[in-house]
Amino acid sequence: MKTTVKAYGATASTEDLKPLNIERRPVGTDDVKIDITYCGVCHSDIHTVRNDWKGSTYPVVPGHEIIGRVAEIGEHVKTFKVGDLVGVGCLVDSCKSCNSCHQDLEQFCEQGATWTYNSADKHLEGLQTYGGYSTAVVVNEKFVLRVPENLDEAATAPLLCAGITTWSPLNHWKVKKGDKVGIIGLGGLGHMGVKFAAAMGAHVVMITTTPEKGQDAKRLGAHEVLVSKNADDMKKHLNSFDFILNTIPVGHEMDPYLGLLKIDATMVLVGAVEPLKPFHGGSLIGGRKRVAGSLIGGIKETQDMLDFCGKHNITSDIELIDMQNINDAYERVTKNDVKYRFVIDMKSLK
Amino acid sequence: MKTTVKAYGATASTEDLKPLNIERRPVGTDDVKIDITYCGVCHSDIHTVRNDWKGSTYPVVPGHEIIGRVAEIGEHVKTFKVGDLVGVGCLVDSCKSCNSCHQDLEQFCEQGATWTYNSADKHLEGLQTYGGYSTAVVVNEKFVLRVPENLDEAATAPLLCAGITTWSPLNHWKVKKGDKVGIIGLGGLGHMGVKFAAAMGAHVVMITTTPEKGQDAKRLGAHEVLVSKNADDMKKHLNSFDFILNTIPVGHEMDPYLGLLKIDATMVLVGAVEPLKPFHGGSLIGGRKRVAGSLIGGIKETQDMLDFCGKHNITSDIELIDMQNINDAYERVTKNDVKYRFVIDMKSLK
Repeated sequence: MKTTVKAYGATASTEDLKPLNIERRPVGTDDVKIDITYCGVCHSDIHTVRNDWKGSTYPVVPGHEIIGRVAEIGEHVKTFKVGDLVGVGCLVDSCKSCNSCHQDLEQFCEQGATWTYNSADKHLEGLQTYGGYSTAVVVNEKFVLRVPENLDEAATAPLLCAGITTWSPLNHWKVKKGDKVGIIGLGGLGHMGVKFAAAMGAHVVMITTTPEKGQDAKRLGAHEVLVSKNADDMKKHLNSFDFILNTIPVGHEMDPYLGLLKIDATMVLVGAVEPLKPFHGGSLIGGRKRVAGSLIGGIKETQDMLDFCGKHNITSDIELIDMQNINDAYERVTKNDVKYRFVIDMKSLK
Repeated sequence: MKTTVKAYGATASTEDLKPLNIERRPVGTDDVKIDITYCGVCHSDIHTVRNDWKGSTYPVVPGHEIIGRVAEIGEHVKTFKVGDLVGVGCLVDSCKSCNSCHQDLEQFCEQGATWTYNSADKHLEGLQTYGGYSTAVVVNEKFVLRVPENLDEAATAPLLCAGITTWSPLNHWKVKKGDKVGIIGLGGLGHMGVKFAAAMGAHVVMITTTPEKGQDAKRLGAHEVLVSKNADDMKKHLNSFDFILNTIPVGHEMDPYLGLLKIDATMVLVGAVEPLKPFHGGSLIGGRKRVAGSLIGGIKETQDMLDFCGKHNITSDIELIDMQNINDAYERVTKNDVKYRFVIDMKSLK
């Protein structure tokens, strides 16, 4: 039986978010119904609400950093039971049969993954998927993550996007104890990058344009701070990094950062989903260096990340807000005024 | 004893090349003196003569695709004997003690490699190194390559730069039988890329803006030709390449080529030692793709390449010229009018 649940969403790109009632599909045999307790606020939510990337279909109900408790399970569900603490990230479905899906890379599903919001809903004809700014959601078991019970529940929410987005490249490129790792940008993504790289045993250098961020970076686990505007300091670190995670969310000059990489080392972009400024071919050629991209992570990798967080007691630094304050929160996110992630307390919507 | 040898060089960036006499150092205990029989003409020669990259010190005697016979050896030389067929590429020395040198990556020597021409000469104080547009050269044994006797001697010369430049990335990124490999650009570099990738067993796709090059590409070993200006054809090849070798020598649009890569696949730049045009961060992020650089290869890898060429009977397609015709050849190279590499017959200088 379909259910109607409370949500917050936007009915047009120029409108504030406001209360809506939305439908959730009946709990199918392989489905898990989750009572949402917390949902993180990602910059992608704002881009989608405002149609910055085009392709938004309204109403948009954002939210892909979902934490909650299992409220109901389908008859074939074996992995979860009612009451379990679970999470849902950016993905709620994929074809499960293509090369990418077989390699646990559902984010690159060749048929196109079903995103948690603003994707065509396979179950409710003519509708889009609606995200976690709501009291409940129904998700196929395979796309539900187990959340370690020892972690702070609210602060766990951002792991589902900001967490996996930064953990995946560090994991995929095999960052290890003793590596010198740079994290560029100290926002929602960067602060997770610092925590993860430190927990992996790396020597972590926070690379920032803003010297004032240095102290907080060290509190989060950075061993050094490199102010990228300081040419002398940049020179001292030339050709010395084993890996750089670049979380800058806009196009930017790449050459100075590429100069920091060792021979054969890699800089991974996770934020700049827009045109990069021109960089010099020689920055890669002279040192056999690499620039790569990374997009969230697959379901298995996301579970690995959550298990790693449970073991190392890693969560996000958050500011908890009520659902009703979401529009103010969006304004603050666009001004980069949050340390480091807003999380919505869904009790406020119930 | 120092010797004076005939050479061709430029005395200023605006001057044609002309006959010069230059000095070669005495044959040291670890040195090999080579009577040069052939020398390839690389576009870098022209850039250095014309001071396009700045830093040229005159006179410039270019040439780093050197083939010849051993004429004399130092008392400690064990690897070569008089009469051996040998080659010298872009490097004639390095510190031999840094991390890069220990990893057989002398091209990235942390103290700065000694290039075959236009580098400070360690042996002749105050002078620059002089390259292969001359009748003889003296080189440290470790930087002399053994050339398989079964290969056409003149056509072997370009292997020392164009060959290793294209072989190294195919080798480093482990191109293997059955891989779908794209080679962008059919010039001195690209035509070697096609031959190598085909010999490695890859399915080779020549990617070009010029449909007329298709037939020759197939003669060289390409299995398919993809005209990059044809949007429909580009679409058919989307997300399908395991590896792309990009030999375009100037800044260019990267997004269309990045779209051709599979998930986790790499495009390597070897030609564009200048600012690239802006490309979209999403081209890398959406598919965890990679752009990397590659610069010639170390001495061990260059020897491996020559051995591979001996085994597979691979040489360059060349046009043989006399030393006296070098200035005309430069004009033709700058107009891309050569199939595919000029090689100087050094008999003409003797």
